Amino acid sequence: MSFHDILYGVEDGVALIRFNRPDQLNAARMETHAELIRALDMADADDAVRAVVVTGEGRAFCAGTDLASGGFDLPEGGDPATGEGVPPDVGGVTVLRLYDMRKPVIGAMNGAAVGFGLTFTLGMDIRIVAEDAKLAFPFTRRGICAESCCSWFLPRIVGLEQAMEWMLSGRTFLGKEAAAKGLALQALPAADVLPRAMDLAREIAAQTSAPSVAVTRALLLRGLGAAHPAEAHAYESRAISACLAGPDAAEGVAAFKARRAPAFTGRVAETDYMQDWEAKT
Amino acid sequence: MSFHDILYGVEDGVALIRFNRPDQLNAARMETHAELIRALDMADADDAVRAVVVTGEGRAFCAGTDLASGGFDLPEGGDPATGEGVPPDVGGVTVLRLYDMRKPVIGAMNGAAVGFGLTFTLGMDIRIVAEDAKLAFPFTRRGICAESCCSWFLPRIVGLEQAMEWMLSGRTFLGKEAAAKGLALQALPAADVLPRAMDLAREIAAQTSAPSVAVTRALLLRGLGAAHPAEAHAYESRAISACLAGPDAAEGVAAFKARRAPAFTGRVAETDYMQDWEAKT
Amino acid sequence: MSFHDILYGVEDGVALIRFNRPDQLNAARMETHAELIRALDMADADDAVRAVVVTGEGRAFCAGTDLASGGFDLPEGGDPATGEGVPPDVGGVTVLRLYDMRKPVIGAMNGAAVGFGLTFTLGMDIRIVAEDAKLAFPFTRRGICAESCCSWFLPRIVGLEQAMEWMLSGRTFLGKEAAAKGLALQALPAADVLPRAMDLAREIAAQTSAPSVAVTRALLLRGLGAAHPAEAHAYESRAISACLAGPDAAEGVAAFKARRAPAFTGRVAETDYMQDWEAKT
Repeated sequence: MSFHDILYGVEDGVALIRFNRPDQLNAARMETHAELIRALDMADADDAVRAVVVTGEGRAFCAGTDLASGGFDLPEGGDPATGEGVPPDVGGVTVLRLYDMRKPVIGAMNGAAVGFGLTFTLGMDIRIVAEDAKLAFPFTRRGICAESCCSWFLPRIVGLEQAMEWMLSGRTFLGKEAAAKGLALQALPAADVLPRAMDLAREIAAQTSAPSVAVTRALLLRGLGAAHPAEAHAYESRAISACLAGPDAAEGVAAFKARRAPAFTGRVAETDYMQDWEAKT
Repeated sequence: MSFHDILYGVEDGVALIRFNRPDQLNAARMETHAELIRALDMADADDAVRAVVVTGEGRAFCAGTDLASGGFDLPEGGDPATGEGVPPDVGGVTVLRLYDMRKPVIGAMNGAAVGFGLTFTLGMDIRIVAEDAKLAFPFTRRGICAESCCSWFLPRIVGLEQAMEWMLSGRTFLGKEAAAKGLALQALPAADVLPRAMDLAREIAAQTSAPSVAVTRALLLRGLGAAHPAEAHAYESRAISACLAGPDAAEGVAAFKARRAPAFTGRVAETDYMQDWEAKT
Repeated sequence: MSFHDILYGVEDGVALIRFNRPDQLNAARMETHAELIRALDMADADDAVRAVVVTGEGRAFCAGTDLASGGFDLPEGGDPATGEGVPPDVGGVTVLRLYDMRKPVIGAMNGAAVGFGLTFTLGMDIRIVAEDAKLAFPFTRRGICAESCCSWFLPRIVGLEQAMEWMLSGRTFLGKEAAAKGLALQALPAADVLPRAMDLAREIAAQTSAPSVAVTRALLLRGLGAAHPAEAHAYESRAISACLAGPDAAEGVAAFKARRAPAFTGRVAETDYMQDWEAKT
């Protein structure tokens, strides 16, 4: 299971995925997407992994879809009116894999994040960005459009107006603006981005219950799609009942009462019951 | 109709509900939820009540679910995959009662608000918080998960990223951070929290039409669940038509033209037509 | 095709719509709505128009629904429980026209924007506001309620809490507060509002592909209504495929590689395939 376009490693309960084509500013091609999905699958399946951090080798985070072959390296065709024969947007497939993650994913945006390099991070849970990193959703300036499910995520992260302004204008903005507008949790000097993201990931790994995190993440994403809070209530009730039946709720209370750190043993496999949820929604 | 876990009183058109177990930092048990729902029912049914404020006796607002009995005082059981036999999350039932309120509810978070003590406030309309109050969604650190419909409310209040960071990490943060991130309207010294919330409530009571407030509150909540603005348009059209048929629209215009304060006589019972809405959505 | 309540002109690829009843503070009556819709139709149909700016003549932007006839100039009647016979809210019809625009719309809020004068702008993509402009959603103080689809737009722009506080209290606030809370992109001295809005519009006109902008705008609005990002993925995939088949994607990449400004030739008619979307959602 070797990688070429990315690097993958696990340490202190954190899987670190690094874009690894620094000479191409980590631009993503078809192979990159396949490797990202494989790495996310590995992180999800490995109980030793409690959180995931994604960063880029070299000075860029990810410069977007690779244009080296002379154009957008994207499939096309089919009928856009009906959807028949239309190939699924490749970036969107990768982001939908993020949506289904059972581990939290933190973007450590060490440098430029453009196009897919930016929309990819919207499916992550937390973004830490270099304050001087150049960011852009440049689609309208390239003759294409919103992709990678960014039309679902972006307005839910920063609100409709800022989403429109960035997306319609396609202009470049800096990491510090991203943080000020809520696109990133924090903007820092570039050298501090990965250490800060790793600290956040290690804190989650050390302090929290794995099934609690997996199901809470899923609940928040489903809650955003629910028309009425009663839908959220139904799913939360199921999840709470499952948590109470698992080992971590008792340990959580015991540790809290004893004022000691909890020693959770729960595994994300305990949240397999969620696999039946989508079909019934 | 006496209360034990809470206090209830009405003055100047404002119902004040106070958590009243200061020695337990106002931790909520089953009886507390029952009393909260009864108090909200009373406030909704009383035409003399035009707004509701919720606060805590002593130094805490509410420390969350009572753990005194040795564990989470919560029902469990059933099949989390299908939902069969799963008991409804108790906090969620209380928050769904907030969703259906016809009076605005303001949280006066005078001190610590943790777990249910914080998620309860998400179903309220406005939160004023003590700047040094300790707040946390500690669920992932206790082996449980999102509850009280917070997966519906929280990302719609503060956006997806901050919701994820607070919920996944379970960390403690202060009232001033809550206000900076939009979880509370304002952070103030603790002694100023209740007076400010009462001022807001009294201003609504004095200046606005009761049916106008009831239906506007309901429309905003339904609007958030609508897939297309045309759905909001349909409900707004119904509500406007009902308002124009009531006494307050004429009084509102007359007062505006005469540059005098309006003397509204409308009652929330005028918005009973909304009871047929959900079924038809 | 002459106008009375508004002015309409096109320059540098930008259609400028001006409320033109300054002696009535640009209050909107039935005729105004009809003219606004006609102007938006013209802007959408004219390939020379790449963006739209809306502003007000005189010191106000728009003081809301005209009360000169003695009351709200609004139709009423029908059954609010079932919706039968209820006339559609007039402001909502105008805002639904904004929702369907294929060109971006920027509000240049040069002065007071109250009631419909403010809710109208929520259906626009970007708002620039005079820092001292008086703004209000005064509905609860007039005995009416949320209208013009603001219950769909407002909480998605500024979050649920600020939406509730402004809407329930009906209080007046200034442009600088609107910008601080994310209701407007920027607050400026009144004299700078229109120039800044025109600069934004001209930049979009000069730098972007017309079909790219049209479909990206539609995708973001549909994304906000989608329950799951997979829905957004389906629509994005169709739109990307259509963009790749059009002339602008190739030009966008060629210009980017040559480090020159793109010369896009695409027309919004290329996005006619979207007309089949709603029915299939």
